[in-house]
Amino acid sequence: MRKPKIVILGAGYGGMITTVRLQKMLSVSEAEITLVNNNSYHYQTTWLHENAAGTLHHDKTRLEIKDVIDSSKVNFVQDTVVEIKSAEKRVILHNGELEYDYLVVGLGFESETFGIKGLKEHAFSIANINGARQIRDHIEYMFSLYPTQKRDELLTVVVGGAGFTGIEFLAELANRVPELVAEYDVPREKVRIICVEAAPTVLPGFDPELVEYAVKFLEKRGVEFRIGTAIKEATEEGIIVAKGEEVEEIKAATVVWAAGVRGNALVEQSGFEAMRGRIKVDEYMRAPGHDDVFIVGDAALIFNPENDRPYPPTAQIAIQEGYTIAQNIAVMVRGKGEMKKFVFDNKGSVCSLGHDDGIGVVMGRKIVGWQAAFMKKVIDNRYLFLLGGPLLVLKKGKLKFF
Amino acid sequence: MRKPKIVILGAGYGGMITTVRLQKMLSVSEAEITLVNNNSYHYQTTWLHENAAGTLHHDKTRLEIKDVIDSSKVNFVQDTVVEIKSAEKRVILHNGELEYDYLVVGLGFESETFGIKGLKEHAFSIANINGARQIRDHIEYMFSLYPTQKRDELLTVVVGGAGFTGIEFLAELANRVPELVAEYDVPREKVRIICVEAAPTVLPGFDPELVEYAVKFLEKRGVEFRIGTAIKEATEEGIIVAKGEEVEEIKAATVVWAAGVRGNALVEQSGFEAMRGRIKVDEYMRAPGHDDVFIVGDAALIFNPENDRPYPPTAQIAIQEGYTIAQNIAVMVRGKGEMKKFVFDNKGSVCSLGHDDGIGVVMGRKIVGWQAAFMKKVIDNRYLFLLGGPLLVLKKGKLKFF
Repeated sequence: MRKPKIVILGAGYGGMITTVRLQKMLSVSEAEITLVNNNSYHYQTTWLHENAAGTLHHDKTRLEIKDVIDSSKVNFVQDTVVEIKSAEKRVILHNGELEYDYLVVGLGFESETFGIKGLKEHAFSIANINGARQIRDHIEYMFSLYPTQKRDELLTVVVGGAGFTGIEFLAELANRVPELVAEYDVPREKVRIICVEAAPTVLPGFDPELVEYAVKFLEKRGVEFRIGTAIKEATEEGIIVAKGEEVEEIKAATVVWAAGVRGNALVEQSGFEAMRGRIKVDEYMRAPGHDDVFIVGDAALIFNPENDRPYPPTAQIAIQEGYTIAQNIAVMVRGKGEMKKFVFDNKGSVCSLGHDDGIGVVMGRKIVGWQAAFMKKVIDNRYLFLLGGPLLVLKKGKLKFF
Repeated sequence: MRKPKIVILGAGYGGMITTVRLQKMLSVSEAEITLVNNNSYHYQTTWLHENAAGTLHHDKTRLEIKDVIDSSKVNFVQDTVVEIKSAEKRVILHNGELEYDYLVVGLGFESETFGIKGLKEHAFSIANINGARQIRDHIEYMFSLYPTQKRDELLTVVVGGAGFTGIEFLAELANRVPELVAEYDVPREKVRIICVEAAPTVLPGFDPELVEYAVKFLEKRGVEFRIGTAIKEATEEGIIVAKGEEVEEIKAATVVWAAGVRGNALVEQSGFEAMRGRIKVDEYMRAPGHDDVFIVGDAALIFNPENDRPYPPTAQIAIQEGYTIAQNIAVMVRGKGEMKKFVFDNKGSVCSLGHDDGIGVVMGRKIVGWQAAFMKKVIDNRYLFLLGGPLLVLKKGKLKFF
């Protein structure tokens, strides 16, 4: 009997967990597992803001996929996905193609610019290792030009968006300012970090008391907030913002767009029914009408039954989805057992403010300060433990708590 | 009796040595010594190529002037010189002015672009700490863009000039390539370092056997040489070069101009008779017609009696000039003793090739390899010893020889 082929596209949180779970659950004689990823490495998306600010090196954030998977059980193919031909059960790659019996799509997110003029050309995005490294190096290069050019905008960084990524990046950057000032001999008082947020509040949907804590933390470190203010355009010189009728230009050499994500466009291009690259999955995490295609991570759209709104795409939900999908594929491969419905077990969320502060809600309890920072590191280390056991925690974990 | 005022402009090699010698030779009751510099720090110009390549941090290259001079004996003024009014014995600074009885002009060099179109706008120059840091950060930023943009010219660095600075910079940069390749995930084979030199040879005037050693060293590390080739223009995309009738465009994101220096333009603007910013000094190191104005370092033009050609401006000659000038000012202040004629004692020169190799002629003997590298470090440490004694050597010296 021919072994069923399982193909997993994308080595993000969801793809990796699905892979290592399948590798554990299925024997080599039961199925052939293939993981496809455009890079040789997996990275922790939730750490990228630190790489972008230059407070953590990106090599701490990534790990070679071959160091985590068992290559006697899983084939790893480093290639870029071009198209999914679901009717033919085939995936077209840049340098080849793969057949599948079961497909897991975990191609992650893309930055969503909502058609704002100039954003694609002039703004950076904390999207992956390459993008984060570019932000770090761009800020440094702009600072290096200041001592000779003396143009104030060289020392201005605008962050578009006061969601999780925006706030976490602002905190890391604010913490790094003293180091940047010393490295580039620039006057501290000329450095400006400005956050522009269209919503009427920072961290929309978060507890107001915690939001206030974060805003105070950042303002104390010199971050300026422009709330209820929309970015109208990004230009070579900076951005044009509007608050009601009031239009203003903010000159800035560095603009980081952290205000919108959407699922990978390839999902739509491959003919799946999707909203902004996200597919409303069935209760077993499958694309509607495709019993052999599972969706994991940022491309999976799942509604919270309590308020009928979609769960935001997070590492936490992607990891849980990976467990469910691996379980369900194992059941299908074996033709016995019961498939598991996905139910999100929300353990809460923590927004870091630098490496030793933060805010969060964990198990329904509000926490701030070092407790939040500690909890964030516990979450990060727990993920590494799930992925690769205690050795991976030792190698890549955040063990220096304070 | 009014104490004579000695003003030293510029804290380069010459200005610093003049200052510390005068500080030692004259008592506070004999003269008032003032040192003026645009930065709070002195730096070793001969180490800047390492800062520019990113193989040595610029904080190793510079030292706070206040840590070297004795502030009970020397006033330090951090300001920029605007004009020297020699008829009025006054120096106009950006934020004030100073009167002098004896003036030492040590304002250093400027990059000389010989009117080549676009060089000022598009090429970097290893002129000072700010410039060196910009080169390091520019190269890094260009490399950071490669993984997403994939434009080969991002990884191309052109160095204009195969003199001492050009060759030393090329060697440091070539040594750093493996680190850059790893840091930015770029393919090694795409990195190009090209040296363009208009003269028919590398290191014109140097021993041919040593030149061959250097060229082989660099070519082995991937450096491409375009000898007898002139840069015609620098553009946003790179440079236009010509060899005879043959014109070619070399696309490069980074162009470093290391082919020409001249004395500070301020010297000419202040009415001194000068050739490309350099003043032909009398035998006591004074500007012709100005018995109270001494010239030290790159602005001093001194002819070698053996071949009637000017000595190239180096740290070695500047340091020796500083000794002579301090001695002569002390004699003039006291109105007794004999002024010393300047005679250059050429101890040779060493061109480093990275931190552990080099070529040189020392005391008339040719040396290559580790011996040259060692000798270069001995020279550097000896200068620090002259400047600040053994403690300064310990603090800022190159003590890790291999």
